[in-house]
Amino acid sequence: MPASYATHRAQLKAILLAWGMPEANAETTADVLSWADLHGVDSHGMSMIPGYDALRRSGRAKMDARPNIVRETPVSALVDGGGGLGHVPAHFAMTVAIGKAKVVGMAIATVRGSAHFGAAGYYSLMAARQGLIGMSCTSASGIQVAPTFGKQARLGTDPWSFAAPSADGVPFLLDMATTTVAAGRIRNKANEGLPTPDGWVLDAEGQASNDPLVAKQKGGFLTSLGGSPENSSYKGYGLATMVNILASCLSGATLITDPMHTKTPRGMDIGHFFMAIDPAIFRASDDFQNDVAQFLGDLRATTPIDPARPVMVAGDPQWKYAETRMRDGIPVGSGLLTQVRHIAQAAAAPWLLD
Amino acid sequence: MPASYATHRAQLKAILLAWGMPEANAETTADVLSWADLHGVDSHGMSMIPGYDALRRSGRAKMDARPNIVRETPVSALVDGGGGLGHVPAHFAMTVAIGKAKVVGMAIATVRGSAHFGAAGYYSLMAARQGLIGMSCTSASGIQVAPTFGKQARLGTDPWSFAAPSADGVPFLLDMATTTVAAGRIRNKANEGLPTPDGWVLDAEGQASNDPLVAKQKGGFLTSLGGSPENSSYKGYGLATMVNILASCLSGATLITDPMHTKTPRGMDIGHFFMAIDPAIFRASDDFQNDVAQFLGDLRATTPIDPARPVMVAGDPQWKYAETRMRDGIPVGSGLLTQVRHIAQAAAAPWLLD
Repeated sequence: MPASYATHRAQLKAILLAWGMPEANAETTADVLSWADLHGVDSHGMSMIPGYDALRRSGRAKMDARPNIVRETPVSALVDGGGGLGHVPAHFAMTVAIGKAKVVGMAIATVRGSAHFGAAGYYSLMAARQGLIGMSCTSASGIQVAPTFGKQARLGTDPWSFAAPSADGVPFLLDMATTTVAAGRIRNKANEGLPTPDGWVLDAEGQASNDPLVAKQKGGFLTSLGGSPENSSYKGYGLATMVNILASCLSGATLITDPMHTKTPRGMDIGHFFMAIDPAIFRASDDFQNDVAQFLGDLRATTPIDPARPVMVAGDPQWKYAETRMRDGIPVGSGLLTQVRHIAQAAAAPWLLD
Repeated sequence: MPASYATHRAQLKAILLAWGMPEANAETTADVLSWADLHGVDSHGMSMIPGYDALRRSGRAKMDARPNIVRETPVSALVDGGGGLGHVPAHFAMTVAIGKAKVVGMAIATVRGSAHFGAAGYYSLMAARQGLIGMSCTSASGIQVAPTFGKQARLGTDPWSFAAPSADGVPFLLDMATTTVAAGRIRNKANEGLPTPDGWVLDAEGQASNDPLVAKQKGGFLTSLGGSPENSSYKGYGLATMVNILASCLSGATLITDPMHTKTPRGMDIGHFFMAIDPAIFRASDDFQNDVAQFLGDLRATTPIDPARPVMVAGDPQWKYAETRMRDGIPVGSGLLTQVRHIAQAAAAPWLLD
């Protein structure tokens, strides 16, 4: 039986504490990871634990790192992550951006010296929960995307996220990799022995392929959103470039194209970007949120192709997952569960999941 | 023989003046339109003149409108376009945002009561030319995109643009519709008697189609970037929603889903969003621009699939067009030229193009 959200979260926190993470850091990191699992973003929750364990063991992510502000103005902060995992500095940076935005109307916090921060949407949503617009993005560690017309991996999944508050209490939450699909969906096709649809992957020569093993195991690539030059993959590629300019060039983190990326002395040195905007600098907040609610309601009311599958807006699938999983618990595949149990045992963390 | 850039620009200005546009407004509007034609964005330059003429004749775009700031803070301005075309208020708003960003580090100007503003990239580039990051987006008038899983037009091409300055003087410039392709590319397929590739259009029932006439003439739709649910069209749909929240909900322009959109007493009432960010609030500007130059250079140096077609970054195709057309003149199709000549004659504007 799936564990409850509270137990799932407590298990994550117990492992992080056992890894030597200070209480406050473990609390924040567990909250970000369990939020992802609760909201159906399974790729960014507990499934990250084996990867984080590898980073920790190899000394590439310090467990006791604490972020600090190295430069700031009334509208901005540059945060150094101190070489730890990304969740704590990301949470810290968005908190700073929100605080400043509430005073001056808008603010950006960038982060350098960080690592994987979990689901970008978590941080954008922090702003929306405070009545602000939130934007977040991050550079990636995995380099697996070839630019349009190229046959060499240069970019990652480089996600972009945007959230806005709505008068009905249901925020808009976009959280998207700038690739056509995430690596996990390709892996699922391979596991089922199915070909990948047109537009998902390229082979090592940069040619379109339907082989689900081509991107990871045969030197090929994920495609940028759009999928092919004919279907405007330059747009997904352009968005990924924008993400890296905002997350790495503004903060001074290493460039994803730099041979030293993820190999610097201070850890992964991934960069993040967080922005908060108070709509009240333009209109009464209520007027803004009423328009957002009206607009999203109009979109949801679009005549559906199939009445059984109504039109949604970004975020809606996540709220549905959260409702179900808060009620029924959070499912974890047996393979992952075994891996995480071994990791917990090795760290002498209590085991709470069965 | 194609007219020179200067003559092409002068022709546009002459028509705008003949329409009763004040000198300063005509100067700005002609600059925006001729910039598009110079940079190969043919869909947003002279080809807009017939559409603008129709708006003018029907009284839905005033030629003597002047934008004014209705609300502002040190980091923001809300601009009312006064019911004219969008170029002048857009140029005004980005100028205000740049001015404020130079003082406080970042600023946003939103615009309501506006209309079509030409190419979004023009405004983002204004910021990049001043050493700042620029972002621009706008709501649309044409409603021709069905949300993912829907079969009813709710959204437009809803473009997003981002520009960043680079130490080598060649800015990054992304300017993209959030649809898979623009309507013009579908029209070209129809003109050639060719089917549209998979992922470009949907029929009136929301099913994938390869009929280039389906979207405009048979009740069908353009697709959101991604092209199909399987290829993540929810991402293009989500970006379009973001664009409308920023451009319309923040400014208070009518929602694209509102039955009164483009039918309000004060004109089209389209909304725009412009942001400028000074990288110097995070790092020395030179360090930022050096990293951008390095990153874009790394991307251009990606091993190409075909050595004859090197990897580019967003903006590169436009700079190439501008170089060629500044040298060889700006080609205008004979059909468009005839239309514009009639419009010039009807307005008693001088004719300079042949």
